[in-house]
Amino acid sequence: MSELRKDPVTGRWVIISSERGRRPSDFQEAPPKRKGGFCPFCAGNEKVTPPEILAYRETGTAPNTAGWSLRVVANKFPALKIEGNLDKTGIGLFDKMNGIGAHEVIIETPLHDTTMSTLPERKIEDIIWAYRDRVVDLKKDVRFQYILIFKNEGEAAGASLEHSHSQLIALPVIPRHVFEEIEGARLYYNYKERCIYCDIVRQEMYSEDRSVTENEHFLAITPFAARFPFETWIIPKNHNSCFDEAQPWEYSSLARILKNVLQRLDKVLNIPPYNYIIHTCPLRSQMKEYYHWHLEIMPKLVRIAGFESGSGFYINPTSPEEAAKFLREAKV
Amino acid sequence: MSELRKDPVTGRWVIISSERGRRPSDFQEAPPKRKGGFCPFCAGNEKVTPPEILAYRETGTAPNTAGWSLRVVANKFPALKIEGNLDKTGIGLFDKMNGIGAHEVIIETPLHDTTMSTLPERKIEDIIWAYRDRVVDLKKDVRFQYILIFKNEGEAAGASLEHSHSQLIALPVIPRHVFEEIEGARLYYNYKERCIYCDIVRQEMYSEDRSVTENEHFLAITPFAARFPFETWIIPKNHNSCFDEAQPWEYSSLARILKNVLQRLDKVLNIPPYNYIIHTCPLRSQMKEYYHWHLEIMPKLVRIAGFESGSGFYINPTSPEEAAKFLREAKV
Repeated sequence: MSELRKDPVTGRWVIISSERGRRPSDFQEAPPKRKGGFCPFCAGNEKVTPPEILAYRETGTAPNTAGWSLRVVANKFPALKIEGNLDKTGIGLFDKMNGIGAHEVIIETPLHDTTMSTLPERKIEDIIWAYRDRVVDLKKDVRFQYILIFKNEGEAAGASLEHSHSQLIALPVIPRHVFEEIEGARLYYNYKERCIYCDIVRQEMYSEDRSVTENEHFLAITPFAARFPFETWIIPKNHNSCFDEAQPWEYSSLARILKNVLQRLDKVLNIPPYNYIIHTCPLRSQMKEYYHWHLEIMPKLVRIAGFESGSGFYINPTSPEEAAKFLREAKV
Repeated sequence: MSELRKDPVTGRWVIISSERGRRPSDFQEAPPKRKGGFCPFCAGNEKVTPPEILAYRETGTAPNTAGWSLRVVANKFPALKIEGNLDKTGIGLFDKMNGIGAHEVIIETPLHDTTMSTLPERKIEDIIWAYRDRVVDLKKDVRFQYILIFKNEGEAAGASLEHSHSQLIALPVIPRHVFEEIEGARLYYNYKERCIYCDIVRQEMYSEDRSVTENEHFLAITPFAARFPFETWIIPKNHNSCFDEAQPWEYSSLARILKNVLQRLDKVLNIPPYNYIIHTCPLRSQMKEYYHWHLEIMPKLVRIAGFESGSGFYINPTSPEEAAKFLREAKV
C-alpha cells in the first residue's frame, strides 16, 4: 500500500506510491507516443476502464456502455486507495499514515480529438458540475481533509493519456500550498478585516494592468507575483471560500470565462500544454470569511528546474503585465 | 530592471526578469543542441565571459587568460543585478523591490568533457571552497539576506550550457522553502530543545534503512518524505547552521562524500540529470541553535508536473528505502 509521509521539518506531506513503484531501469526515457493508438477513454472502450462512478449519459443507455457525454472513473493506477484505515503512526520523529484517498479521472468527452478549449461552453459547464458532484459525494467520507481538482493538458504538462481529462485526488491531509494560502489569508483578515482575494479583485479591476478578461461573476488576471510566464488566475468576484458552494449561475459563468481564457492562451501561445488547479477550502474547517476559492492556470512553457521546485524560488522571464496585454488583445 | 515581487497571500518572492524578457514567440521549443559547438566556459575563451570575480589559477598567469583550474564570473544573463538601490515600494496591497542581487557562475573546470562526479576529490574541494569564498565576500553587502548556491547538471535539469558549472544567487529576500525549514526547525527546538536535523542524523544512523553512505563528518540519506525518486541529502554530523562556517576538514569530507554519492547516482541511474541546492542560514539572523545546513540532491528522473509544483503536493513513485538500498549497494 502507498504511504503518506510528512516531512518532519516543513510539515509537507508526500505520497510514496507503491502502486507506481519504479525501479532504476523504469526511468529510461519513454519513447514518444504514437498518435492513433488504442485509447481507453474513447467511446466504445468503457470496459477497459474501472467502472464508472458518475456519468452524464443519454437516458436509456446502460452504465459502462457508449451513450455518455462525460464519465468519472477511478484512476487505474491510483496514487491512493479508498479501502482501509489511516493507521496514523510515528517512527521515531517521523509521521506517516496509510495511502488512503480517492484518485479519480474525469473523462471530459467521448471524442478523442478535442481539447477543453474547443468544447462548447455547455460541455465545459458539465465538467465543472462533475467536479462539484464528486466533491459533494466525497466530502461525506470523514477521513478526507481536502479534494484537489486539477487538469494536466499535453504530455509536457504530465498528461499520460492524450484524450481530454481532468483528475481529482481526495486526501486525508491538506496540501502545503493550500495551507500557506489559508494562513496568509487569515493573517490579512485579522489585520484588515477584509478578504485578501476580494481586495485583489478590487485592485485589479481598478488598475487593469493585469486583467485578461471578465464576466458578470469572474475576473481573469495574470497574478502580480506570477511564478510562470502567462500564469492566469480566474477569481470569483463574489466572496466564497468553497468551490462546491458556488451558485449554479456561477458554474455557467465559470465555464464561459474558462473557455475564453483557454482560447486566448491557445491563440497567443500556439496551443500550449498547461496545468490548472482549483484552490478551494479544506473540507473540515470553517474559513468562510477569509479564504476565497479560485482557479490557477499554469501554461507549461519553460522547464521547471529542480532548483526552482526545490527552493520555492521562481524566476519568471515574462512580466505579468506583458502577458496580460497579449492575452487581453487576443481575438477569440 | 528586473523586479522582486511578493505574493500577497503566501509571502513567496518571485523574480520577474526583464533581462530574460520573453515574448510568446520565444517559447517555441529550442532545437536540440549540437555537441562540440563553441563553449564560452572552455579554457582559451576567457574573453567571452564577463571578467572573473575569483579564480584559482597557476601562479604567474594573468586574470582572464588560460591557466586557471576554476573561475567565478558574473552570469552573462543575470536574473538580478548588483548595481542600484532596493527601492522597496508598495502598489496598493502588492509589495515589490528592484531586482538587486548577484548572479554568478562557478566554472568548475577548464575541461569541457567532464562532470563533477568524475573530477578528483581535490578539485571538488576547490569548488566547495569557491562557494565559501564567494559567500564570505558577498555577505559583506548588507542588502543581501540569503545566498542560494545550486547546480543544474544536464539539459533536463535546466543547465543551458553543457560545461560543468554551478550557480550562486545573492538575494535581498529569504526564499520561501528556506523560511519554512527555519520555522519548522525553530518550532521543534522550542518543543524539544534539540536540533531536528541532529535528531534526524541520529535516527537515520541507528535505523540505516535510508542511509546511503557516510564518512567522519557527513551522513548521506534518502529523506523519509522524499519528493523525488532517489532524492538524497548530505547532512553534516556536527551541528552547524551555516555552510560558510564549517571547518576546513569538513569541506574536504564534503568533497569526498559528494563525489561518492554522485558516483552512486551515476552508476544506479545511468548518469542522470540532477540539481543540488545548499540549504544554509540566512545572512542576517541568529539561528545557531536550531538550524542545520545541508545539501539536497534531486535527480531529474520524472517530469515535475505543474500540478505538483503548483500544489506543493508530490507523488514519489520510488520509496526512499528502496532508493537507498540501490545506492548503498552500488559499487563505486
